This record gives sequence, structure tokens and C-alpha cells, in this order.
Amino acid sequence: MTTTLADRVLAGDPRAMARAISLVENEDPAAAELVRAIFPRTGRAYLVGVTGPPGAGKSTLVDRLIVGLRTPSAQRGKDQNPSAGSAVSACLTVGVLAVDPTSPFSGGALLGDRLRMQTHASDSGVFIRSMATRGHLGGLARATGDAALVLDAAGLDVVIIETVGVGQDEVDIIRAADVSIVTLVPGTGDEVQALKAGIMEIADLFVINKADREGADRLASAVEANLSLQTFQPDEWRPPILKTVATSGNGVPELIDAVWRFRAHGQPALAARRKTRSEYRLRELVSHRFMHRLEHAILKPGELASIVDRIAARELDPYTAADDLMWRVIADTKSQ
Amino acid sequence: MTTTLADRVLAGDPRAMARAISLVENEDPAAAELVRAIFPRTGRAYLVGVTGPPGAGKSTLVDRLIVGLRTPSAQRGKDQNPSAGSAVSACLTVGVLAVDPTSPFSGGALLGDRLRMQTHASDSGVFIRSMATRGHLGGLARATGDAALVLDAAGLDVVIIETVGVGQDEVDIIRAADVSIVTLVPGTGDEVQALKAGIMEIADLFVINKADREGADRLASAVEANLSLQTFQPDEWRPPILKTVATSGNGVPELIDAVWRFRAHGQPALAARRKTRSEYRLRELVSHRFMHRLEHAILKPGELASIVDRIAARELDPYTAADDLMWRVIADTKSQ
Repeated sequence: MTTTLADRVLAGDPRAMARAISLVENEDPAAAELVRAIFPRTGRAYLVGVTGPPGAGKSTLVDRLIVGLRTPSAQRGKDQNPSAGSAVSACLTVGVLAVDPTSPFSGGALLGDRLRMQTHASDSGVFIRSMATRGHLGGLARATGDAALVLDAAGLDVVIIETVGVGQDEVDIIRAADVSIVTLVPGTGDEVQALKAGIMEIADLFVINKADREGADRLASAVEANLSLQTFQPDEWRPPILKTVATSGNGVPELIDAVWRFRAHGQPALAARRKTRSEYRLRELVSHRFMHRLEHAILKPGELASIVDRIAARELDPYTAADDLMWRVIADTKSQ
Repeated sequence: MTTTLADRVLAGDPRAMARAISLVENEDPAAAELVRAIFPRTGRAYLVGVTGPPGAGKSTLVDRLIVGLRTPSAQRGKDQNPSAGSAVSACLTVGVLAVDPTSPFSGGALLGDRLRMQTHASDSGVFIRSMATRGHLGGLARATGDAALVLDAAGLDVVIIETVGVGQDEVDIIRAADVSIVTLVPGTGDEVQALKAGIMEIADLFVINKADREGADRLASAVEANLSLQTFQPDEWRPPILKTVATSGNGVPELIDAVWRFRAHGQPALAARRKTRSEYRLRELVSHRFMHRLEHAILKPGELASIVDRIAARELDPYTAADDLMWRVIADTKSQ
């Protein structure tokens, strides 16, 4: 009997995990098989999303979260939490996916990522991986979701998804998380922007990092003022505003406590969120599979380009062309 | 004979234009018909993309561009430009689409937009419209592209697409433009971020706005240093770095000149870019039409939710579910 990549992922082999993430990132045909094989063994990891504008110190904060989660006190915090389930192992393991949707063309990884890996290189309970977009619409969010499944299947207890940006990508990526931490930073004049940026709606916890800087209280007040505009039901989670100084580690234990409090509070909400996430992923995946079929099984090389030429010449409009292509996929399959 | 909405758009009726944009924004079924009807009359407007990080003063800059384009000197500049074509009218008309991909949930328009409209309300040669995402993947970029077609068909000479963000959305939206202006601002510490943000690759012109602030020269040097890493062919356009103070209007005439210079330089490049844009839009639209068929003609109410439940229970994996759904669209159509 041969050992498959999925078997090795399920056994927690770091090299297999890295290889599996490369497959999903490159949209390798083997990725779908892999996800099929590991999927029944997923759903156990707690997914923590960390997002916020550029320069908010997210990487440093995530490093501190790793250290904090690897210390016994954080594990005690989790053990004391009845909702943490029976799966809490003696040692809390952590995976990090550092996602950069802001480099659509370079395809490059986050700067300093290699350094970060070295910091935790001696710790076999930590797995860090950076991911960058390959330029496909929705591709990065899909790949990140699949990569989280890989780390989940490999048995990591906590998977941190760290992403930068202020747009729809970030929201799509962070949809994969069970808890979303929005990191803000005082003194960049981005206060108003941060509030208007639509990430208010996805935040379960606000963190004001670099809280030793001038303007931290003003930023906290601005977030608080914005929260006070919203109506919360008596049993509804109201996002707390935490202050951290990631460089020194100040406030990080309180942040970890808040994550566990959210987890304890949010079990019904978690199920609903995972359902929304699944539905979103499913829609996106159907569309992706259809396009893959169109481009790889139906269209001849250069054919799309010639249709585009006809559109450019205004001989054909894009809606008619799109419908023609859709029907061709169907017609071709009829003849099978 | 009845006058259709398309007829009224082609006649340049502002109310019809606003109504048409609402149709494309809301993904109304009538939108496809409208685009089909107006499409043969498009391709004449020059599409100017203005993007950059939050707080770069893009709205003020766009206001100044409107004023600049509406003055005789700018028109002279365009008339002197042999590549501007014969379509230059006595009066250069301007449309603005202010796109906010950062409010995926609120669906709200840009703040201050109403104010801006009032500034130009007395000028019938200016049409301003804000657009916000309805939360669909790719929906905003598609809607923006269609809205630009509406303004193009209505006979506007220049259509400015203004967008905020640092991610893939922004890149998708700005793909619609014939020229992309990337706006940066000194002193926010975002210099490195801006350069790393993947928007280097889409910039045809760099504008350092608020150039009277400290750090403008340093920012210009950073952009220049980054450009010097790239290799440009002798006949290839090298993005110039311009300085503006949008609040006073300083540097705006030079920016408009640079846009016309780019246009004069870039005719072959423009054709290639429009082709790339068309292909991208076509792929996105095929996928969208397929999903629309799946959700409106194939699935029964609640059916997607029950599939999602099975995924959540780990009875079914997402890839198998996606392929099943794709084949159901095809099977259903077979029986027609």
C-alpha cells in the first residue's frame, strides 16, 4: 500500500503540508483530489483571522500570538473554557497562513517571512506559510480556504490567517475565519478610513496596536463611537476594543483571552458563520470548475482571443458572447 | 415606436444614464439587454483610471481634473494632439464613476459624493455617479465596466473611474481604464507599502499629491528608485512622476498634459490593453451567466442550503459538490 500525500498530511508531516499548500496555491489538478481525501478529517481547528491596514503591525502581533498560544497559560485559558471541546491536546499547535492579496502581479511572498519562520523554526508545534495571489479572480481566497483545510487536517489546533488590505479580497479571505481580529494603528490619519472601510462589519475583536503611540485613545473612541451606532441584542457579541503593543507583547495575553471568550460565546454563531462560508466557497468553486472545463475541454487554442477580437471590433457584444460560450459547454457535453 | 432606455442613453439623457447605471449595478436582468443595445456605439470615450491608497486626496484631484478638462486650454491640448482623433467635440464632456470597493457590506456610496455633485451640478457637461459593491465576487468590477459603457455610449469624451483600495478589486476595476493614474501621498509612512502593493505594475502615471507636504521628494525618489529597477524598451512608455497639490490645483494642468502625451504615445498599447480587458471581462461574464443559470433555473429554493449542510456535516466535500452542481446544469439542459 502506498502512502499518499493526503495520508502524510493527515499524519502532520510538515513537508507534506507544504507540498499540499503549493498544490492548492498553484491550482494543480491534484489539489481537488487532495481536498476530497482530507476533507472528512477537517473542521476541528479554530481559525483566527487577523487583518487591518498596511503598517498596523500585524506580523509582529501574529508572532506574539504564536508565542502566547504556545505558553501553558494560554492553554490553561483554553482548557478552562468548557466550549473548547475535548480535542484540546496537551500542547496547543499553531499554523499561520500569511496572505498578501496586494501583490497580484508579482506573486511574491511577504517580506520578512523567512525571518519569521526562522524565529519559530525550532518549534515543531508551529507551521508558518506565506501565500500570494496568482492573479486569478477569487483564486487567493479559494487557495487560502483550502490551505486552512490542509493545516486543519494535519491536526493543528489554531490556524491564524493573516491578511493585509482594505478591500473585497481581504473580506473574502477573512470569511474563512471563525473569529476576525481587525488591527488598527493610531496616528496614521487612517482612523476615519478604517471605520469606513467596510471592515467594521467583519470585526469580532478590535485591536489597537502600537497603543503606546499618541492618538491610541482617540482611535479607540472613534471605534467605540462607531460601535455605539449599531444595535446589539442582549445576547449578541459586542466586539471589544483591545490595546496591544506587539513589539513588547503588552496586551497580547488579554487578546488571547478575548479570543477564547468569543469562542465560548459564539458557538451557535460559529455554526452559522461556517455555513455562510461553505455556501460562499461552494458558489465560487462551481464557477471555477465550470470555467476550467470551458477553457481546457471546450475552447481551442486562440479561440477566446478571436472572440475577443470580434468584441473589440464591436461585431459582438460581451453578453451575447458570454451566453454563446456557456451554451457551447452544454452542447459539447450533450454529444458525450 | 417607443423610445427605449438604450435610445435615451444614446441621446445623452442624464436621467436615463443614471437609470441605466442602476440597472447594471443591481444586476437587473434588463442590464444585459441594455448593454447589448448600446455596445455597438461604444469605444469612443477615453477611460481614465485614478487610484491610490486611502487619504491620497483622489476625490479632490478628480474634481480638479474635471475643472481642468472643462477649460479651453485642456481642450486645446487635446486638439493639438493628432492621435486624439476626429471625435473631439467643441466642448470636452466628462463622466466620473467614483467606485468604492471597500464597503462590501454597507453598500454605501462615497462620503461627500453629494457635495461633489452639487459643485458640478450647473455644468451639463459633467456626469458624476458613485458606485459601491453589492458584495458579489467580481460584481463591482463588472458593474463598473458596464457603467463606463453607458457613459461612453452617451457620448461623454472622458470617463474617469476613481477607486480606492490596495488589493485585487482595485486592480480589477482599474483594468477597465485606458490610462491608470496612481496617486500617492507623502508622510503617511506608506511609501514602501505603496510600492509593494502591486499597483506599481498598473501605473501609467504616478501622481504625488499633497506635494507641498514634507516627504514629497523622498516619496518621488522611492518611486523613481523602483522604476529604475524595471527595464523599459526604447519606445516603451516610462511612467512619469508628477506632483500635484489638488486643493490648490497646482500641477493639475501638467497632469492633464501627461495624460494626453500617454494617449498619443500609447495607441498600439491601448489596443492591446483593451483586448486584455475584453478577455478578462468575457471570462468573468461567462462565469457569472453560468452561476445565474444554476441559481435561477436549476436549483430549487433551499437546495443550496441543504448541500451546504451536508458539507458542514462533512458528508460531502466541496469539490465533489461543485462538480455535481456543474453537471446538473448540463443534465437539465439536455432534457430541454
